[in-house]
Amino acid sequence: MAGHDTPKKIHLDESEMPTQWYNVVADLPTPPPPALHPGTHEPAGPDDFAPLFPMALIEQEVTTERYVDIPGGVLDVYKLWRPSPLFRAKRLEEMLDTPARIYYKYEGVSPAGSHKPNTSVPQAYYNHQEGITKLTTETGAGQWGSALAFATAQYGMECEIWQVAASYKQKPYRKTMMEIWGATLHSSPSELTEFGRALLAENPDHTGSLGIAISEAVAMCVADPNARYALGSVLNHVLMHQTIIGEEALLQLAKVDETPDVLVGCTGGGSNFGGLAFPFLREKLAGKMDPIIRCVEPAACPTLTKGEYRYDFGDSAGMTPLMKMHTLGHSFVPEPIHAGGLRYHGMAPLVSHVYNEGLVEAIAIPQRECFAAAIDFAKTEGIVPAPEPTHAIAAAVREALACKESGEEKVILTALCGHGHLDLASYEKYLHGDMVDYELPDDAIAEAMKSVPVLN
Amino acid sequence: MAGHDTPKKIHLDESEMPTQWYNVVADLPTPPPPALHPGTHEPAGPDDFAPLFPMALIEQEVTTERYVDIPGGVLDVYKLWRPSPLFRAKRLEEMLDTPARIYYKYEGVSPAGSHKPNTSVPQAYYNHQEGITKLTTETGAGQWGSALAFATAQYGMECEIWQVAASYKQKPYRKTMMEIWGATLHSSPSELTEFGRALLAENPDHTGSLGIAISEAVAMCVADPNARYALGSVLNHVLMHQTIIGEEALLQLAKVDETPDVLVGCTGGGSNFGGLAFPFLREKLAGKMDPIIRCVEPAACPTLTKGEYRYDFGDSAGMTPLMKMHTLGHSFVPEPIHAGGLRYHGMAPLVSHVYNEGLVEAIAIPQRECFAAAIDFAKTEGIVPAPEPTHAIAAAVREALACKESGEEKVILTALCGHGHLDLASYEKYLHGDMVDYELPDDAIAEAMKSVPVLN
Repeated sequence: MAGHDTPKKIHLDESEMPTQWYNVVADLPTPPPPALHPGTHEPAGPDDFAPLFPMALIEQEVTTERYVDIPGGVLDVYKLWRPSPLFRAKRLEEMLDTPARIYYKYEGVSPAGSHKPNTSVPQAYYNHQEGITKLTTETGAGQWGSALAFATAQYGMECEIWQVAASYKQKPYRKTMMEIWGATLHSSPSELTEFGRALLAENPDHTGSLGIAISEAVAMCVADPNARYALGSVLNHVLMHQTIIGEEALLQLAKVDETPDVLVGCTGGGSNFGGLAFPFLREKLAGKMDPIIRCVEPAACPTLTKGEYRYDFGDSAGMTPLMKMHTLGHSFVPEPIHAGGLRYHGMAPLVSHVYNEGLVEAIAIPQRECFAAAIDFAKTEGIVPAPEPTHAIAAAVREALACKESGEEKVILTALCGHGHLDLASYEKYLHGDMVDYELPDDAIAEAMKSVPVLN
Repeated sequence: MAGHDTPKKIHLDESEMPTQWYNVVADLPTPPPPALHPGTHEPAGPDDFAPLFPMALIEQEVTTERYVDIPGGVLDVYKLWRPSPLFRAKRLEEMLDTPARIYYKYEGVSPAGSHKPNTSVPQAYYNHQEGITKLTTETGAGQWGSALAFATAQYGMECEIWQVAASYKQKPYRKTMMEIWGATLHSSPSELTEFGRALLAENPDHTGSLGIAISEAVAMCVADPNARYALGSVLNHVLMHQTIIGEEALLQLAKVDETPDVLVGCTGGGSNFGGLAFPFLREKLAGKMDPIIRCVEPAACPTLTKGEYRYDFGDSAGMTPLMKMHTLGHSFVPEPIHAGGLRYHGMAPLVSHVYNEGLVEAIAIPQRECFAAAIDFAKTEGIVPAPEPTHAIAAAVREALACKESGEEKVILTALCGHGHLDLASYEKYLHGDMVDYELPDDAIAEAMKSVPVLN
């Protein structure tokens, strides 16, 4: 009987690793709305993206093919840590005294410690194939910067990273990790761009922001014909690269004869959630299984549950194409919760679209509940989660406790998208009672929503 | 043909995990000399150890049985991360342009991030079985404290850790990791012991030492009938628990039809080395393979290559039984190299004995060569190693480059006994040119050797 002799760790051999990414667009009942040029408000074309991305990725951004082959040069690097393990959380289940069976796909086994290398590696690969020798990017807390630094090292490319000044100063160890892989780090705002110089002239102690760091990375990439820019979430091709998570999880669950009743994933920009959920959404749309699929976002940045589905800019400065997405307004600045990767004003257009179509649900959870669940998880399953997936764990625990009440033997699936080895300061605050849950007044959202452009 | 289609990651299923530890004593040509009572200089008996350790571990310390069954309650916890992967370092081989094939057994997948939980888990288990509710220990940099905190959490036990004051202040994140698993941390010297109070009265800003922290942990354990003490290396039972590393590696290499020509492992107290090497030494003594087996120690603490094989104390304060081991003298204070886990004046009696018998070799490597090798490793294989196993990696690189010269296709095996996520400050120093190689004058050793007791 399913679930009764499950091993702790459900393994896939290298030979069983999926060799294609999945493009959910091919199976959606309605197509997602296109990105718009920020000036003309016409659908953005390949030329609009060419200064930033290589042609292969631009094609992946708009393709309607159901599957895209993963190149051999990417598979070789994936094999450094993939297939990633699927764990049965038996010891957590025992602690919760629940009849539910909880499975988690663990992405913290990657060199950078999160799911981000699933896309940084192909992004570096395609750029390298097209003769690009340098990638620029921004990073906040540093997970994405680490992943891109690792990926560019695999193809002998340069990597230049603008890190938000506050993080650059507060998190020296993340910076060191990126430098180990050969990346060059700049505190943002920097003296290297006109924008940065102007901001520093105004305020030499400027603490920076993700929006400013994006502007600097983009400006430096555009100025160098051998350089391109890389983005760690939000875009269609990024989510597609991440579907290897869900494809592997499907194969692993099939090995133990299980199908999920509930799938929960944390959502910031949407790449971890989309990566896990989209292959299961395909199965659901095909009538092969019927899981509830639930986004979990931080209560301090409730993009799906409290934002509006509107065309908005991807960055704070309003330089990117307009994307139709759930947004709190691109001027929205979330409170400083510890899950830095979930502090984004918008949501991936693909995740926004499937949510708008009613194919997935969403809930928001305050951070102290998340850390409480993470401590229970660490004490039983061993792994110390990154702050972002503590949200997914808290949602899984809620569901497991509901099963304890109802007696239902539900199968719960989630992704533990990274370890917390470089985020222990947040746990210290939680353990010592210094962590707060932020209230988010409705008028703060109303105010930020004023920054969303009104189209026609 | 062996080595030509090796997968990147050589997997063992849970069902293939060894269920016995290996006791090398059963196969040694001559028995290792016994521990001696520090007062009488007679062989130490079970009663001498009873206030510190549970009877099951005391029996394991002196057993001559070849194999000891791993209890089910330990296997259940091992399965959180074991069997650990054996990797083929293909990308490092390519960078070095060597015909050698390099394999590394990766122990950083454990929740605490090193091989230490292989022994902290059974130590907690046996204590729990005998009704003990609390374990005390010391920790320096924090790897051992983390491992014991994790292990005691698995059995619902208390864990009280004395951390060297300097590390307690400088490495707050390690402390947080231990607290996540529910341990209580004290800066040592502490106000909790007579010894600690006396030292603080002399100097309120005392930075502590491992020897002092051991004395405090032992004093608190002896004063509490429900508490025992746990040690993370050196002793026979600790090395035996670690043999699961080598037993798994043997099975994994057999899967790809390989036998090692050279085995290298870093040595501090000796548990990582013994754990990997002893099962291979058994095969060598049985004539089934003939690897060179080589210890790699830091040039700043060259216990085997420059120490003497003498009876000496295990701790700096001279409270423990006397053990015959390679020692630099228990008053030896190594320079502050970053591989904190290798800064030990002595060497496990079992490792010392096999070295003295000529069954294994030893070399010493300065730390900058180790970090240089680690950076190459991180850039190719992805994983950022802890400072301790950078020594093993440097030795593997030396051997691989010798193969490049000679054209030999040697099979090199090593253990990557932990990741460096909580040791990035050492990499920062290396990358920014702030790391030095310490000279170790012969007269410093001669001076410290004066602290070794002269027996009879």
